[in-house]
Amino acid sequence: MFWVLTKTSVTLGTRAAGWVRTMGSHQLLVPPPEALRKPLSVPKRLLLGPGPSNLAPRVLAAGGLRMIGHMQKEMLQIMDEIKQGIQYVFQTRNPLTLVVSGSGHCAMETALFNLLEPGDSFLVGANGIWGLRAAEIAERIDFQALPPPLPDTQSRLKSELPGFPPASLCCLNAHDSSRYQCLLLVDSVASLGGVPVYMDQQEHGESGEFLCEISAIPFSVPILGIDILYSGSQKVLNAPPGISLISFSDKAKHKVYTRRTKPISFYTDITYLAKLWGCEGKTRVIHHTMPVISLYCLRESLALISEQIALEKGDKRVPETAVTLFANRPMIP
Amino acid sequence: MFWVLTKTSVTLGTRAAGWVRTMGSHQLLVPPPEALRKPLSVPKRLLLGPGPSNLAPRVLAAGGLRMIGHMQKEMLQIMDEIKQGIQYVFQTRNPLTLVVSGSGHCAMETALFNLLEPGDSFLVGANGIWGLRAAEIAERIDFQALPPPLPDTQSRLKSELPGFPPASLCCLNAHDSSRYQCLLLVDSVASLGGVPVYMDQQEHGESGEFLCEISAIPFSVPILGIDILYSGSQKVLNAPPGISLISFSDKAKHKVYTRRTKPISFYTDITYLAKLWGCEGKTRVIHHTMPVISLYCLRESLALISEQIALEKGDKRVPETAVTLFANRPMIP
Repeated sequence: MFWVLTKTSVTLGTRAAGWVRTMGSHQLLVPPPEALRKPLSVPKRLLLGPGPSNLAPRVLAAGGLRMIGHMQKEMLQIMDEIKQGIQYVFQTRNPLTLVVSGSGHCAMETALFNLLEPGDSFLVGANGIWGLRAAEIAERIDFQALPPPLPDTQSRLKSELPGFPPASLCCLNAHDSSRYQCLLLVDSVASLGGVPVYMDQQEHGESGEFLCEISAIPFSVPILGIDILYSGSQKVLNAPPGISLISFSDKAKHKVYTRRTKPISFYTDITYLAKLWGCEGKTRVIHHTMPVISLYCLRESLALISEQIALEKGDKRVPETAVTLFANRPMIP
Repeated sequence: MFWVLTKTSVTLGTRAAGWVRTMGSHQLLVPPPEALRKPLSVPKRLLLGPGPSNLAPRVLAAGGLRMIGHMQKEMLQIMDEIKQGIQYVFQTRNPLTLVVSGSGHCAMETALFNLLEPGDSFLVGANGIWGLRAAEIAERIDFQALPPPLPDTQSRLKSELPGFPPASLCCLNAHDSSRYQCLLLVDSVASLGGVPVYMDQQEHGESGEFLCEISAIPFSVPILGIDILYSGSQKVLNAPPGISLISFSDKAKHKVYTRRTKPISFYTDITYLAKLWGCEGKTRVIHHTMPVISLYCLRESLALISEQIALEKGDKRVPETAVTLFANRPMIP
């Protein structure tokens, strides 16, 4: 590089000249940070709270694998395997199943940005921080989210919300104590023609145990009547945080694909993501650069789950909650 | 887990009972995918095209480090080091400098979603796929992007756009041949009170060489007069794709912080991200779960750049282009 720098100092004016020297030069506006001279050190921590979980050795190892191109055939193969893994943990055959290149909040926006259109009403199905977040997202794109507490039975939904239109959406969250109420609402909203969205998110700060349940309890998108389900990649799924899993039923897909307007976000436009992820035939359309290494890790965590390793290690309290939940489900009005 | 399953089969009805067995059971709707039984195999590839680049051993190794909590003090320290590293490669002291938890397109939306408000006009400063993408993002949030070719001098900007308001924005991309035109427009727009945004993105498919220039050439946000700069983490920065670097000048920050309306995206709302990244004092506010492993890798790539390793290995043609660019810059009308 130095021959270029030499040439430059002759050609350029004073202001520019400093800039064509190396960035390590003393003429820089900002010198190389001292803090970056230290080696990166990461302590050993047992992670049981909100946030990521300790990774299995196989998932950790995947994080250190060499890079390949995000549209090379081996990467497309890995993406196909991930799709199958998500269909397995979600227990769905929804073809529109893929990974969003962002954390759980990005997936929340992916669900709401793609589904909500002017004329839709929007229901936030439970209390807690995630309900508030969903309500705030709705408000930002000009939707009035109905405040909690919400009617939790079909008859109360009908009587208290007589104007509830068939295309309406129900946004449900997995806030600890309200999970059961959420699943009641799924039934009520679906029976009125709505599109239930289920958010597998954890409550921050209130509890030391994990609350994201995907892969910790048996979970089925079609049997539970959920039209859109998403989940972060961390916690029980045991991949690093930063990407999310999402699945749209054919009903939800139809609503999205027959929109009169484009969703406001290009980055999370599910019609583009579907083409990138090969959900519409074999042709792939480049949309954004895939988070290659994160996808390696997710692939390995899904492989571990499909071998039941993650399930066997799951917290027993979560399956217990599941038992109560499923046992009471026949009582849904 | 099996004691739970036994209890369940007694308690539940037929439909639910199948679901509380392990996910590996033959009663599952979707069996464990065969494809996930194979070990993950990643071929050796020399990556010179669009997309990610081959990672340095130190960056690769960071991808395999153990997980820590995304709000633990060691992680906050790593985030601080990353901020300093970005300030170094961008050559800026902008306090509002941080990482967006998404690819370059997510950062593009972060810039435009936060800046654009009803009443602003929007200029796309160059041809190419990235200009079209920026125009499409603008259109989705109800902004009329002015089509290329655009006036590339201040006098033509004034004569052709007499109504150009002071708060207007200029969106510039780094499409190969139009980079020089972009930098001309930066000056023109800034002198008229606009907020120039510079996108360090590569053109897909047209060229075999990398076009993202951050860290490959000396680059200065304040000297070039750029108010918002973002870059993906891949290519010359040599971190895995999936996260992005972004920096707002005080002028751009002022425009964002005095908005009359909230930006449409909660995920990319820079006022929340600023609090998460400690850009407003020491108090951190949880916003979303950080992509911990990706941040390890970025920290290491920034450390390498600050040790000039990445710069020394840079393609000589990029510095050559820089020389031409900077040499001609005094001629800007």
